[in-house]
Amino acid sequence: MINGSKRIPHPIRWAMVGGGRDSQIGYIHRSAALRDQNFALVAGAFDINPERGLKFGTTLGVDPERCYPDYLSLFEQEAQRPDGIQAVSIATPNGTHYAITKAALEAGLHVICEKPLCFTVAEAETLREVALAKNRIVGVTYGYAGHQLIEQARQMIAQGELGEIRMVHLQFAHGFHSDCVELQNGAALWRMDPRIAGPSYVLGDIGTHPLYISEVMLPDLKIKRLMCSRQSFVKSRAPLEDNAYTLMEYDSGAMGMVWSSAVNAGSMHGQKVRVIGSRASLEWWDERPNQLSFEIQGQPAQVLERGMTYLHANALIDDRIGAGHPEGLFEAWANLYYRFALAMDATDRNDSTLLKTLRYPDIHAGVEGVRWVERCVQSADQDGAWVDY
Amino acid sequence: MINGSKRIPHPIRWAMVGGGRDSQIGYIHRSAALRDQNFALVAGAFDINPERGLKFGTTLGVDPERCYPDYLSLFEQEAQRPDGIQAVSIATPNGTHYAITKAALEAGLHVICEKPLCFTVAEAETLREVALAKNRIVGVTYGYAGHQLIEQARQMIAQGELGEIRMVHLQFAHGFHSDCVELQNGAALWRMDPRIAGPSYVLGDIGTHPLYISEVMLPDLKIKRLMCSRQSFVKSRAPLEDNAYTLMEYDSGAMGMVWSSAVNAGSMHGQKVRVIGSRASLEWWDERPNQLSFEIQGQPAQVLERGMTYLHANALIDDRIGAGHPEGLFEAWANLYYRFALAMDATDRNDSTLLKTLRYPDIHAGVEGVRWVERCVQSADQDGAWVDY
Amino acid sequence: MINGSKRIPHPIRWAMVGGGRDSQIGYIHRSAALRDQNFALVAGAFDINPERGLKFGTTLGVDPERCYPDYLSLFEQEAQRPDGIQAVSIATPNGTHYAITKAALEAGLHVICEKPLCFTVAEAETLREVALAKNRIVGVTYGYAGHQLIEQARQMIAQGELGEIRMVHLQFAHGFHSDCVELQNGAALWRMDPRIAGPSYVLGDIGTHPLYISEVMLPDLKIKRLMCSRQSFVKSRAPLEDNAYTLMEYDSGAMGMVWSSAVNAGSMHGQKVRVIGSRASLEWWDERPNQLSFEIQGQPAQVLERGMTYLHANALIDDRIGAGHPEGLFEAWANLYYRFALAMDATDRNDSTLLKTLRYPDIHAGVEGVRWVERCVQSADQDGAWVDY
Amino acid sequence: MINGSKRIPHPIRWAMVGGGRDSQIGYIHRSAALRDQNFALVAGAFDINPERGLKFGTTLGVDPERCYPDYLSLFEQEAQRPDGIQAVSIATPNGTHYAITKAALEAGLHVICEKPLCFTVAEAETLREVALAKNRIVGVTYGYAGHQLIEQARQMIAQGELGEIRMVHLQFAHGFHSDCVELQNGAALWRMDPRIAGPSYVLGDIGTHPLYISEVMLPDLKIKRLMCSRQSFVKSRAPLEDNAYTLMEYDSGAMGMVWSSAVNAGSMHGQKVRVIGSRASLEWWDERPNQLSFEIQGQPAQVLERGMTYLHANALIDDRIGAGHPEGLFEAWANLYYRFALAMDATDRNDSTLLKTLRYPDIHAGVEGVRWVERCVQSADQDGAWVDY
Repeated sequence: MINGSKRIPHPIRWAMVGGGRDSQIGYIHRSAALRDQNFALVAGAFDINPERGLKFGTTLGVDPERCYPDYLSLFEQEAQRPDGIQAVSIATPNGTHYAITKAALEAGLHVICEKPLCFTVAEAETLREVALAKNRIVGVTYGYAGHQLIEQARQMIAQGELGEIRMVHLQFAHGFHSDCVELQNGAALWRMDPRIAGPSYVLGDIGTHPLYISEVMLPDLKIKRLMCSRQSFVKSRAPLEDNAYTLMEYDSGAMGMVWSSAVNAGSMHGQKVRVIGSRASLEWWDERPNQLSFEIQGQPAQVLERGMTYLHANALIDDRIGAGHPEGLFEAWANLYYRFALAMDATDRNDSTLLKTLRYPDIHAGVEGVRWVERCVQSADQDGAWVDY
Repeated sequence: MINGSKRIPHPIRWAMVGGGRDSQIGYIHRSAALRDQNFALVAGAFDINPERGLKFGTTLGVDPERCYPDYLSLFEQEAQRPDGIQAVSIATPNGTHYAITKAALEAGLHVICEKPLCFTVAEAETLREVALAKNRIVGVTYGYAGHQLIEQARQMIAQGELGEIRMVHLQFAHGFHSDCVELQNGAALWRMDPRIAGPSYVLGDIGTHPLYISEVMLPDLKIKRLMCSRQSFVKSRAPLEDNAYTLMEYDSGAMGMVWSSAVNAGSMHGQKVRVIGSRASLEWWDERPNQLSFEIQGQPAQVLERGMTYLHANALIDDRIGAGHPEGLFEAWANLYYRFALAMDATDRNDSTLLKTLRYPDIHAGVEGVRWVERCVQSADQDGAWVDY
Repeated sequence: MINGSKRIPHPIRWAMVGGGRDSQIGYIHRSAALRDQNFALVAGAFDINPERGLKFGTTLGVDPERCYPDYLSLFEQEAQRPDGIQAVSIATPNGTHYAITKAALEAGLHVICEKPLCFTVAEAETLREVALAKNRIVGVTYGYAGHQLIEQARQMIAQGELGEIRMVHLQFAHGFHSDCVELQNGAALWRMDPRIAGPSYVLGDIGTHPLYISEVMLPDLKIKRLMCSRQSFVKSRAPLEDNAYTLMEYDSGAMGMVWSSAVNAGSMHGQKVRVIGSRASLEWWDERPNQLSFEIQGQPAQVLERGMTYLHANALIDDRIGAGHPEGLFEAWANLYYRFALAMDATDRNDSTLLKTLRYPDIHAGVEGVRWVERCVQSADQDGAWVDY
Repeated sequence: MINGSKRIPHPIRWAMVGGGRDSQIGYIHRSAALRDQNFALVAGAFDINPERGLKFGTTLGVDPERCYPDYLSLFEQEAQRPDGIQAVSIATPNGTHYAITKAALEAGLHVICEKPLCFTVAEAETLREVALAKNRIVGVTYGYAGHQLIEQARQMIAQGELGEIRMVHLQFAHGFHSDCVELQNGAALWRMDPRIAGPSYVLGDIGTHPLYISEVMLPDLKIKRLMCSRQSFVKSRAPLEDNAYTLMEYDSGAMGMVWSSAVNAGSMHGQKVRVIGSRASLEWWDERPNQLSFEIQGQPAQVLERGMTYLHANALIDDRIGAGHPEGLFEAWANLYYRFALAMDATDRNDSTLLKTLRYPDIHAGVEGVRWVERCVQSADQDGAWVDY
């Protein structure tokens, strides 16, 4: 049960790079970080436009002196202060994640970075090496994974309630980019530009979300090979895809299917995870995150509800309010930030015991997301051939 | 509006091959045929066991003399009678469909046959030739296609309400064979035996159902190539699959995806058709056949209901009762049998004008289903390579 | 399992009064009666307009000689024939039910009558006396009660799966008469005219449907007193109501609530039955009749599906097709007509053993429906005072 | 759009009375108040047990000196400080609300109080007088009313999209107290004790929530008279009810129905509001707060989604994240606290222009809730007689 009591003695001194005035993602980072008194926002380089960034930082209550024009100044000047930042969140366009994350780690900071962490597996592994060398935490904001029922699913699968796992069906398929909205919408525009967005649009931008959830639920499942077919239904988006199908074979013989789309007209999110075993299936949908379908073959279908005492203890620790009251995406993110803070604090205190118990999307999850996108693009570029993972 | 009034002056004299005592499918054929006074059941070869067939035919009210031990006797002896049968329905295991259909056509009978019509495209085309040469109707019981809202979807798509079609997602994925139920269940057992079931299990047995629905909704869409990956999660079923994924590219650039499964644990039917256009999507689910989701991007999602006056006139002609009252699968089948009867009668009267207006799963639909299965198996046997259609 | 095999040796010779050309209710009566070979339609007085009735009867395949101009001729002339009718269904406006039913019983016929059976408890009890004296069956078409899951609910409640029953919430609340549609719609018009419709509109026309379902599910629950508030939101309908609330106290201390409405704008049927016990609740909705919600307090909610082997044997005997395939209202009615036929046949054979096992909406159910409406109107007319039952 | 930017220059110095360690409601108050930087928690009397309160306050980061043993000390001693509190939230058992609110107002504080504000209309009106005399804000935490789609419904109704309003159906009916859980659960125990809970349990504790939502959506609807029937299904709860039905007649001729229950076995919340007009209906359910059903008679039913641009501008101002992402109860509360802060600040600045535009559950809403409970109990105690409002 989370109730606002402090878990670490002093909030972590924290900054943001990006996430400025009009950024939705910036607000959810701040809302999550500040929710449980584990972080204090003391500095930032909030905007590519320094003036706008200063103005916005001020409205957030940040000392104007600590609103920096760019991330390099932020890292350098904070390093000079006795009360300098300990951690930074990066909420900038994809193309900058690698450089900023690397610089932050080298400056000795813990990092929370938007996905994708970077564009290539080689880059991702470099970041992993730096993080390990510097003994710093890298959290990646696969934010949906903070929902309580994801943990419940993980526990049920671990306990064999589904039997042998046969299929993993993942989708994140919204319809908001059915039209060429990037002409009017800056946040959409850069996502279609391979220089800024990287080698993929929907695979990396949204497909990696349910992929990470599947890794949480099914830690033992390893992809053996995959094939991917991707499309640019709005032609001007090519070479980046606005729709993609990925088929995956796992080592165990299980099969995976991922549908990533921004042109599923009329659909809101459409993020769904269905895990099918020899005995039963589980299904979770991010638009109704407080429910988990559990369907045992030959029995009436069941719906599990967040917060109920029949859930696993590991799921219930994230409770913030009684069952029936809907929690939303902000709680999922706050739960992740809560663990980021515990992990950072434990790292700083060399508490490896605690660290081992904390599950959160870490540098390894970040690397895996990049690897998956790289392999998907590789297959798609070979006309949908199967590629080894 | 269908209200039990006779549409053709005298019921078509009709027989069944198969569909005996314990056959569910036999009952739904009879229920559909007899519903609207268009057919009269006057003869049959109801069972592989003649004695059992005679006994069962009698309980149906068939003259014991006209309960034949096998289909050959049925066709021969009925041909001798002035009041002999005019049409026959075939509800036997797959491996016999080809021979029985061919014999029936050669005997000058109209035929209604269970899917799959046969095992190879070559056979299917032979049947088509015979049917055309004999000027006889062949109806194939893709029974779900008789639901009123399938026609509504067809009309909406034709009128451009979805914009340009981008994706067609089909699934029929139940969980009833998650376990090796064929050990106890005869109707399941033969479906796993390639000698009787043919080259596939779920692709042919269930995947062809939503495939046909997609052909009804989207008559202009032509498959260009496809790839298929199939699995036998219950090992003893190999080489037949109990699960399969098919990706399809259409000539137009649209994409298709089909999930066929008998091991989707805990799911009832899971037959769903989603058509996604540049402007809007339609979705239909056979377990709630009286509803059709219509999702225009940027507008509130809508649910259309069977029987409402806002539906297209071509959809409303199948109405049997006011909106709100659920119709079920029996009405869908009865609607098809209704059209089979009209088509048979029109053929016999050389009424080509009427014939052109009648849409039902005909010999061409039968051929297409066989072709699709053949191509899927071909791809799966080549490790999921793309094969031209 | 119902599969079309004959249960009684010869179909019952059967006629209809009313249910003519444009009558939806006529078609569902015929469809239900003829579905299982238990009835043969041999005569009728189908229309208040004899000529139209003759024409329509002919299209149904009835011998023109046996298409009578009115019900009195029908009963008299059929009584002269050696092959005269044995049973009659009455599908005429409410105001004629009493006289026709009485005449039919006195002519020695079994009767199936639309609800309400008549307008007053005194009349209803007269009909009961005549039926008992003549030893004839009276079936009342509370057609929804034929759905398989109603029986499942009855069994679960009998076995104590809900604990002590606390509340029974009933509603039938559609929106089709939100506007003054009776100006255009004849079938609506007479329902608003107290001379033809009787003392109530929605209470009798639709409220009695879920009331009867509650009697089936909860045979031991007896109403002690009730209060009712009724409204005519479309003013011209007064004194008949288009909306009504009824609160009921049962002998046991349980409470009942009924919402009857024809002005629930935008709703299709809205017929729902929720039974709440000290341990669990059941909920059934006629628009999704193949599902039954079962909610045990403190456990995940469950959905039971028609046709599954986990259902009670008494529920499964009505199965016509495997689980997953939706059955609709036509099957519910056919199940009732099936039992009407068995009851008529058992009565004619003096088989009181079988008779005792047959549950169907009989003359007692008909009387109870009339009593309930009478009491509701009595309370409403006293400004919603509580009236003893 | 709310994005964490400061709306008022300095956070309001704020304290809590009650809401201690194990209090869920305490956490949601704090979470809501602190979310948007409009309040700073600087003091409190968190617990009836001073030691426990001190300890808990400290874990929240409150200066131990400002963790007071009781509310009187809190108000007195803070009043001595130059940086003393400006506002207080009261999250204590019902029986104390009146005294604490009165004392707080008299101490010149703005107040946010849990419902019910007090036990009698006389008390409530006294509080209103004091609040007006002192020119202080009283906010009442009808927290669900902060959901964005409540405002959307209000706007749609105001614009006549439903036509003339005919019915208002309200329910809050959970099943968590189906058993006598108060034996184990302190938070339930006091709710069953009339000395602490007041004259009702479910009417006041949960029924007033949807009642307030109906006041927001339908500001012009005035109750003319009502009748109420209440039950204590768990006998030991008498005289307090665990279930109640209320029927209401409005001045306009519209009808209202409220079902309040804690023994709706198996239901989570069951808080639903359905408003039915002559043209269309709206329905909202607190467990899926991001959706609003809109059903126009004769058209396909629609579902409106939070955050979509087709919503009314007054609804969209509460957006915190893009459509599709579920917001939950914490956002609803935060939206209310946001308005409480603006109202307090505007009051302190004498900005009556702004004040007039702010809608939130104020002292008048608090009085109305108390009045409704008083009238319901009055009717129930007269055996369900109609009582004037």
